[in-house]
Formats: sequence, C-alpha cells, structure tokens
Amino acid sequence: MNIPTIDLPRVVVIGAGFAGLKLARQINSNHYQVVLVDKNNYHTFQPLLYQVASAGLEPDSIAYPIRKILRRKPNTYYRMAEVEGVELNQKLVNTNIGKIKYDYLVIATGAGNNFFGNKTIEENAVPMKSLVEALDLRSKILQNFEIALNTHDLKERERLTNFVIVGAGPTGVELAGALAELKNKILPKDFPDLDLRMMKIHLIEAAPRILSAMNEKSSSKAKTYLKNLGVHIWENTKVEDYIEGTVHTSNEDFYSDNLIWAAGVKGQIPKGIDASNIGRGNRVKVNGYCQLPGDESVFVVGDVALVESEAYPNGHPMMGSVAMQQGAYLAHFFNRKLKNKSVQPFEYNDKGSMATVGKNRAVVETKGFKFQGIFAWFVWMFVHLMLLVGFRNRVVVFVNWMWNYFKYNNGLRLIIRPYYKSKREEKKNKNAA
Amino acid sequence: MNIPTIDLPRVVVIGAGFAGLKLARQINSNHYQVVLVDKNNYHTFQPLLYQVASAGLEPDSIAYPIRKILRRKPNTYYRMAEVEGVELNQKLVNTNIGKIKYDYLVIATGAGNNFFGNKTIEENAVPMKSLVEALDLRSKILQNFEIALNTHDLKERERLTNFVIVGAGPTGVELAGALAELKNKILPKDFPDLDLRMMKIHLIEAAPRILSAMNEKSSSKAKTYLKNLGVHIWENTKVEDYIEGTVHTSNEDFYSDNLIWAAGVKGQIPKGIDASNIGRGNRVKVNGYCQLPGDESVFVVGDVALVESEAYPNGHPMMGSVAMQQGAYLAHFFNRKLKNKSVQPFEYNDKGSMATVGKNRAVVETKGFKFQGIFAWFVWMFVHLMLLVGFRNRVVVFVNWMWNYFKYNNGLRLIIRPYYKSKREEKKNKNAA
Repeated sequence: MNIPTIDLPRVVVIGAGFAGLKLARQINSNHYQVVLVDKNNYHTFQPLLYQVASAGLEPDSIAYPIRKILRRKPNTYYRMAEVEGVELNQKLVNTNIGKIKYDYLVIATGAGNNFFGNKTIEENAVPMKSLVEALDLRSKILQNFEIALNTHDLKERERLTNFVIVGAGPTGVELAGALAELKNKILPKDFPDLDLRMMKIHLIEAAPRILSAMNEKSSSKAKTYLKNLGVHIWENTKVEDYIEGTVHTSNEDFYSDNLIWAAGVKGQIPKGIDASNIGRGNRVKVNGYCQLPGDESVFVVGDVALVESEAYPNGHPMMGSVAMQQGAYLAHFFNRKLKNKSVQPFEYNDKGSMATVGKNRAVVETKGFKFQGIFAWFVWMFVHLMLLVGFRNRVVVFVNWMWNYFKYNNGLRLIIRPYYKSKREEKKNKNAA
Repeated sequence: MNIPTIDLPRVVVIGAGFAGLKLARQINSNHYQVVLVDKNNYHTFQPLLYQVASAGLEPDSIAYPIRKILRRKPNTYYRMAEVEGVELNQKLVNTNIGKIKYDYLVIATGAGNNFFGNKTIEENAVPMKSLVEALDLRSKILQNFEIALNTHDLKERERLTNFVIVGAGPTGVELAGALAELKNKILPKDFPDLDLRMMKIHLIEAAPRILSAMNEKSSSKAKTYLKNLGVHIWENTKVEDYIEGTVHTSNEDFYSDNLIWAAGVKGQIPKGIDASNIGRGNRVKVNGYCQLPGDESVFVVGDVALVESEAYPNGHPMMGSVAMQQGAYLAHFFNRKLKNKSVQPFEYNDKGSMATVGKNRAVVETKGFKFQGIFAWFVWMFVHLMLLVGFRNRVVVFVNWMWNYFKYNNGLRLIIRPYYKSKREEKKNKNAA
C-alpha cells in the first residue's frame, strides 16, 4: 500500500463503521498517523437501511463519503481496500492492494449476518446489513409485485407477495411496520388491479416477545401497533428451514419468496486472530481497555469486540451506540497516551433504545423515562436525524419524512438494478472479473 | 400478458420516455385502454444523467416510478417487460412476459448509443444513456482515483485520471464542465495526496465547433467557459479507435481509461419493422402524422421516429422537447379521433436550446433571445427543475443545487456498486440467471 512514512506512530483502523469512524475523527492526528481501511468509500448509517429497503429513503442520503468526513484531519489516510487478514507477529495487515505495517491496530470490522449454519437459508434469504443488500431488497420487493400481476396462479401470487421477516429486534420490527404501511397506503394505488388482501406480513421471533431487549411495556405496545397495521406476529417461534419457497418454523409453515433475515449477527473477524481469543457471537475477546490480551498494540471495538464486564457478562449489545462510545473511548485512550496518562476501563453509558413502527407510532426507553406514541415517534425521528452524518443528508431525509407524513408517497419505488436469484453466483463472477 | 379485455380500443405504447409518457398522460383513457410497456419501472429524466455520473445528484431524484405517474388514469396499465419484437400483420407485441394484442401501436423506444460499428470502442467506452450507466460511470470515476493513489507508475496514473469525452453536444459539454469543477474544487480536498495536475479533461468533437446545433456565439462562449475551467477542446477531430488504453483520433492520441461516449445516438427499433421503413440514424420513417406508411394502426414518436418535412428534411433533432411534443400531438390525435375529427400534420415548435458549463455559466437560445452567463444559468436551472416529474424530486434537486452553489460539495461521491471491466459479461450472466 502506498502510504507515506512519517515520523509518527501509525494507527491502522480496519472498518469505517460507527466505531472506526468515531476513532478516526477524534484521535489527535497531529501526533498519530491514521490509516483507515474500508472496502466501501462511504460510511453507512445502518439504522435506516430498512427505509431504503422499503423505498422510504434514497440510498445516497444515509451514506456519506469517508474522504469527505476526514477531509480536515491531518496525517489521516483513507484507503479503499478489502482486508484479507492480519499478521500480528509481523504487525502487518494484508489487503487486496498490498500489505500495511502498523504500530497500533484497531479492528472495527463490525458484524455480518448469522444464519446459524443453515445453508439453504443463507442462499435464499435476503439480508439487509449493507446498502447494496437494502437496494437489492427494494428491487426484489417491487419486482415481485410486477411479476405477481402477470400470473393467474394464486399459489404463485401468494408466494410472491407474502413476506416473512425473521427476527423482531428493532430492525425486524421497523421493517415490518414499513412494509405494512406500504401495503396499506401505497401498493393499492400503485397496483389497483392486484388483490392485496392476499399479501401477508409475518414477523417471526424466537424469544417469548418482540423487542426482547426492551421493557415489557414497550414490547407489548409495539406489538399492538404492529397488529393494528396488520402484521402477523409469531413469538416463541424458531425458523428451521427454507425449502422450495416454504419457510418451515417450529410453529406454522409459510409459503413466501420473501424471507428477510433480521435475526442474528456475528462478528466479522479478519483472518489471523487466534481461535482462543474468539468468544460468544464470533467476537474477539478483549480486556476492559478493548485491548487484545497479550498484544498491547491491538485493539478491537464495536460489534466485533467482546468486552466482558460485571454489568455485561456476555459482552455489550451489538449496536451503534456501543460502537460509537468505544470508538470515542479509544480515541481518548490514544490522546491520553500522548501525555503518558492512562484511562479507566471502558464503561458503556446506556442512553436507552427505541424503535418506530410507523407513522406516529414508536416506543422509546431512556434512563428513567419510557414513553410511546406520537411523541416517541418525534423523538425517534429527531435522534436519527441528528445522528446522520452531513447536513445535506439531514435535509434530504427530513424532506422525505415530511413528504411521507403528509402524502404517504415519495416516489422512490425504483427498480434501478433488478434483483436476480443467483446473486451469489453473480458476486463470484464479479470477483473473478 | 395478463391485461383485462375491455370494450375499448387498446393502445399499446412501447417505452416510457418523454414521448410515450406524455402520450399516456394526455390521451383520454375513458375511451381508450392504454397499455404502457417499459423494461424499467421508472421514467428517467435523461438531461440530468450527467449530474448523476459526476456525483452532483442522487439517481432517485431524476427518476420517477411510472405507476405513480399513471395512478389517476383510468383504464391505464403499466407492465414491466422487455419487448422482443412486433408482428404488425397480427397486431401483436411480443415481450418476455407474453404476447399482447393491440388495436393501435405506438413505438416510442427512443435512442441508444451509436458507436458507428467500432467494436473496441463499444466494448470499452462508457456510455451514459441510462441511470445504470450513469451510476456505473460515477463508480468508475471515483474508483479510478482510489486506484491511482496506490500506484507509483506515473503512466498508469495518467491513464486512470485522464478523461476523454467524445461528442460536444449539450451532454458532452455539460459533463466536461461538471468534471472540470470536480477536478478544480472537490478532488483536491478529497485526494490531498494525489497530484491532480496530471488529470486532463479532453472534449473531442468531429464537427468544426462544439454545440454545433446552436448559434456560433453560444458555441464560442461555451468554449471560453470550458477553457477557463481547464477543459481541452479538440474540434474537427474524429475518434478512430481505442486500443489498449489509447484513444486514437484524427488529431492527437490520448492515454486514458475513461473514454466517455456522448457522441452519437441511433434509433432503437423493435424487431419486426420492415427494413424499407428504416431511414437515417436507424429511425423509423413515418408520415407527418407520425404514422407508419401503409399501416394506419402503427405510430412512431420520439427519438426513434423520422418525420421528414420541409423544415426538417433529415427529421427532427433527437431531443426531449421534440419527443414531448410528439407525444402530446399523438394524444391530441387520438382524442380528436373520438369525435371523428382530424388533426394537422405534426409541426415542431422549437422553443430553443441551452447548455450549462458549470456554476454561473450557461448558454441559452430561445426564439429571438440569445444570452449567456449567470442569468442563462438561472434559466437553465429553472427550466430543468420545472421539467422534472414530481415535486419531491424538484425539492431534492433544488437542495442539492443550492448546496453545491454555496459549498461545492454535496457528498454524493459513493461507490455503491463498484464498476467492473467485464460489464457486458456480467450482464450476460444476469440475463441467463
């Protein structure tokens, strides 16, 4: 890799998600050379991916170019590259554009989909962890309605227009709500000659209740909201297999071409990390300073880090707020180090969580406060707007939301690149090219 | 195809560009059944594609779902399908989702790239006629800068960062201006460690002057604007070949990975039209009523139609304003027909033409008026905003333009789907899937 050698310790950061980006922004790069590596040239605001998938927002407004974010930081270098592995004993990162030497390594590679080893599900379910996946899902949904119009076979229509969302965390709940609004308000006008009563939205959750990480009241309120929108909720239900268009669960079976995977995530660990350091959820076990045991030059932050503490014996929840705090913590660690000062171990400050189910409906939990309904919905919107990077993005998202609020119809239902079944094959071809 | 049979004459329209869409919107569909067929579920505002390619606008704001446009029209059916051919003697259109019978057929299939038979150019140049092509070009440009950073080979850097735009009509001129602004204002901040002086933008034109369809004054003013922005203009220059990264022209040769084709278009005619009806520019020869000679049930409008008249012995220019007027004309024709009234042959009302070269710089020609500079630029913006379909799109485009005006930096420089050399192969794989 072509990075100038300067007389500063070099911090190589893998991944420009919430953790890696926060670190790169807050570290004092007058005294460190920072090299940020990511395969995408943009940062993705993952919490709003479901709105891209359900045609509520354009992809460009929830992504932001990394170079623009880091523009004013001295001694900071972004490189678009795929990391192939790390060689800790050599202090090297191997990428598809060459090797890079580090003094400090920060692994912030995030989490990917966890299909719990089921190959048929992995090959046929639609995930929603990246911008490309969200756009593929948008194409697939819209395409299936176009195709459904052209068949007289009712069973086939059912398959094309039924939705099965697996996992009722915030992502699954929010997507189910967005799809229900699409069904109730928009599709009947777009497809006047298609009987949409046969379109069903099923939300499947293995735990005894949806939004199981939240309070029972929030969870039951969200359930009411979803039911009112017409979503079928299946709690205590495990997905077992997906064979020839049928989703088999521990409860009923569902015939659907649209199996959307919002169920599980696991850490994405670069090759070269010793198996003994890998723990629960395929995350890297680190000490309270987010440091790899036995190697003080290697740090792990965000979803891929497993910091076990008294308060969180199984590690922190894999979510953006933890990642941002760990990124900021690590920047603080490096900045204090310059003055030969130490820091306390990382402590997660849980500011609460929230989920929206649709227009005027959300559940919010913060320290001491729990509330639902329209005010919660405004809080949800405000917080998400403020977390978005870039003022332009905020304006465009705000315009969209206001538009949808008053008109329920923003006109983003575009199949720009059609979705093809053999996505994985196509990907292989692309990589070979 | 699954279209209800109702007791109205059926008008099948192929293509939802400016002509087809205008017709579908203005025809009295209380008395005609209208079936609009397009392979994309959206209408593309082609005049702004170059801003998508140069990362000035998001793709979603210059496209609009066809279903949403036709929502309030009775007896109007959109079908997403690729037309494979027409059988005029059977009054049938063959598509990938089946055959469709028509009483009246309107061919509005537009124009595609014309590489004048040069296969190496066709395979390696980047066209910009569709939203996908514009996005591919955006990815390619940004990717090439990322790759250029990682090579020490100066010749290779030159190849990656040089741009050769072929064709200096409005599209070529506008793209050259947009790339020059990218080079002057944005890239130096995004790529502080890349020497951008080596990046050259060449605009190649076979005719004796750029914007040759416009007045000499406009053309020379646009030339001054482009030169001031640092664009190299090569008039009277023909592109001959593109071999191993070198663009061979009748003048100099250029070493560049970015050969952008804005040079020629030709009609895209569905199979089944008799060769004797095909004229100049691969367009279908029709009479003054846009009607196929010898078959009163078939009409051709827009870029693909060749209406020879005294004023336009070689047919009308292939541009949006002609297409819109022909679409409106044909709707009028059908609507008058209901009352057994006839219409006069089509006459093009030339309202003028315009091109922008960059911030505060444009040239405009209307009946009687010719002006340049900042006022022309405002007129250009206003006209384009008003022509965009959808109020939301206008707001988002306006926000982007204002943003760029004051900050020169909207942060849309995303490589969402990387560009791969073997695009055509990939496409083949997709089609096979």
